[in-house]
Amino acid sequence: MKQFYAAVGGIVEKNGSILILRRSSDKDFAAGSWEVITGRLEAEENPSRGIIREIEEETTLRAEVILPVNTGFFYRGNRDYPMIIIDFWCKYLEGTVELSWEHSEYRWVSLQDAAVDLNLKPFQRGIQRILSLKNALPTDFDFSIFR
Amino acid sequence: MKQFYAAVGGIVEKNGSILILRRSSDKDFAAGSWEVITGRLEAEENPSRGIIREIEEETTLRAEVILPVNTGFFYRGNRDYPMIIIDFWCKYLEGTVELSWEHSEYRWVSLQDAAVDLNLKPFQRGIQRILSLKNALPTDFDFSIFR
Repeated sequence: MKQFYAAVGGIVEKNGSILILRRSSDKDFAAGSWEVITGRLEAEENPSRGIIREIEEETTLRAEVILPVNTGFFYRGNRDYPMIIIDFWCKYLEGTVELSWEHSEYRWVSLQDAAVDLNLKPFQRGIQRILSLKNALPTDFDFSIFR
Repeated sequence: MKQFYAAVGGIVEKNGSILILRRSSDKDFAAGSWEVITGRLEAEENPSRGIIREIEEETTLRAEVILPVNTGFFYRGNRDYPMIIIDFWCKYLEGTVELSWEHSEYRWVSLQDAAVDLNLKPFQRGIQRILSLKNALPTDFDFSIFR
């Protein structure tokens, strides 16, 4: 039976904008590219807890998961690293971004802009799904029922 | 870096009802319990393709993924099997259920009933999220934008 490494992606949303970050030039994989929050799961870690930990480690922000919005498979760099990724729609709760060594820059961009930003291609499907759901759900929809 | 086994769950919906199946008494894990479609990913397999393959293998139904709705971590039986699971909301497309050796019975039950059915506890969060989204989204919501 096949084993995988597991990654999580966090699309952190604050009032219709999402946080994007630029990977440091020091990173061993995809250095310099723009992304949402990403990280690898630790042992015994629930994916929805793992992404909240990663958001905190990489930005110091406090956030909560709304819903997983996309999943994928890829090789991270080479074929020794078969990896599954789960992207989550997360809601910003509080804090100000303070970057770790993993990123060199950050920006908040509108969901509309992010959904068509080719630099964010690996995360685009998740971003587009969030945009579709936000547009279709009532403005008073109570996301806390997802908890 | 920790490796995981990866499982997928498929909550197959047809007009507000979902398919539940009873695990055969021959199964090595959780024999006799009711569940939605579940299975393990094959090598190099995208989770959203894997669940469609599992649905076909276990029921012969044709279905498509709408959205991932829940994720989790558990040990499958013992600590040598750390496992991540991703549950998907899937839409029934066509076919009649023909069970494999893995299941002994099946039923279609309403989302409302399934959401409170304690026999389906591991899948309840995903089922409840589907019910919430279905209740809140416009009846003419075009789910094909998720593809």
